[in-house]
Amino acid sequence: MKAAIVLLSGGLDSATAAAIARTEEYTLYALTIDYGQRHRVELEAARRLAENLGVARHVVQQLDLRAFGGSALTADIPVPKDQLSIHPKTQRAAGFSPRGGTHSDDFGHALNSSDIPITYVPARNTIFLSLALAYAETTGAADIFIGVNALDYSGYPDCRPEYIARFQELANLATRAGVEGQHLRIHTPLIQLTKAEIIHRGTELGVDYGLTISCYDPAADGAACGHCDSCLIRRRGFEQAGVNDPTRYIS
Amino acid sequence: MKAAIVLLSGGLDSATAAAIARTEEYTLYALTIDYGQRHRVELEAARRLAENLGVARHVVQQLDLRAFGGSALTADIPVPKDQLSIHPKTQRAAGFSPRGGTHSDDFGHALNSSDIPITYVPARNTIFLSLALAYAETTGAADIFIGVNALDYSGYPDCRPEYIARFQELANLATRAGVEGQHLRIHTPLIQLTKAEIIHRGTELGVDYGLTISCYDPAADGAACGHCDSCLIRRRGFEQAGVNDPTRYIS
Repeated sequence: MKAAIVLLSGGLDSATAAAIARTEEYTLYALTIDYGQRHRVELEAARRLAENLGVARHVVQQLDLRAFGGSALTADIPVPKDQLSIHPKTQRAAGFSPRGGTHSDDFGHALNSSDIPITYVPARNTIFLSLALAYAETTGAADIFIGVNALDYSGYPDCRPEYIARFQELANLATRAGVEGQHLRIHTPLIQLTKAEIIHRGTELGVDYGLTISCYDPAADGAACGHCDSCLIRRRGFEQAGVNDPTRYIS
Repeated sequence: MKAAIVLLSGGLDSATAAAIARTEEYTLYALTIDYGQRHRVELEAARRLAENLGVARHVVQQLDLRAFGGSALTADIPVPKDQLSIHPKTQRAAGFSPRGGTHSDDFGHALNSSDIPITYVPARNTIFLSLALAYAETTGAADIFIGVNALDYSGYPDCRPEYIARFQELANLATRAGVEGQHLRIHTPLIQLTKAEIIHRGTELGVDYGLTISCYDPAADGAACGHCDSCLIRRRGFEQAGVNDPTRYIS
């Protein structure tokens, strides 16, 4: 059996990416980072998903990014509510236009710093992929799955396809595995999908979205706020997909 | 004042790299990773060095790489003693040949997996540089200093000049700072220096090497074993430099 590392946050996207890896017959090694995120109830969601997916091993790595701060997710900065701040060209990927839910090949645009939301966590994906790389080397896995997608890269520099391609090159220079000629690959099976398309695909694969949490600012019991960007996008995605959203929203 | 992140392990190289950054009139922000290393007395050395250097802030980030293992430094694997395993072409950089202590421009060679020692920690520098990148973004620093050198890259893939260059490219794609056009740079002021040259340079700059610890397998009181690769290389470096080695060796 071939092994893959799956970055599992507890959210909708990573659950779907992991389910796709499983259909490709990888043995899954899940990695979740407890980074001091405001929405730490997602860690419990990640544990439930890892069990549900039947992973071979689940590492929950502690790493307190509040030491650096600089984000609404890791510092005392309010999470914006009811003011979706995504690039006009990508509103379609999120289903916020009449043509929502269609394919997203044309969503790419040059990223400006004004497009980057306050929920951006400095260097987060570089840190997470680096940890996945360490896990891959010691597991003998040549494949890493991450759930970045078209919607993410409208605002987060470290979700863009060119960033992922560059990280893959780095991974092969950085490691014993690369020196040994094992070609390490970063898989982004959702990168060209809209939110509705992701939900469709996951539903086909039997992902239990009731186990996932997307909210950036949830209640202690895991109920979603219903008003942060992540909730607004999730709700609309389910609507556009015509799939029942099992999330418990506060309002 | 311009700010720089300095990766400070507590060893000889990073202490020298930090001292060089200081002469270039950066305000120093030190970063040390408590990664579950066998030689954790180096963390105390890093604290003493940070104080001695007068850094503006010192973050000691906890990150337990024993969750992944795979190295003599992070797993229950013995540290090799009295069997220096470095590439013949780089023995000169370490001062283990009559011509030792000279310049190391010609030390580069294609890395084979047999050259990589068991003290290699999977993806370590990628993880450390990623954390330095997060710290840089939230500090407003565009410069990161790391003490990799010719001797390291004889065996560690993530110390090679081509690896560092690739990480720098990635850093500028990965971050808000990069999107904003701030050019992030990874500085490797020791990369072409032999161990003796590093000690010469640090001595000129007033580095107190008595504060540093290089040993991979020290006693609880910080005394160095005197027999691991790191001790053998350090001892020879001081001999070749004609500088008194202030290290307390067990034998």
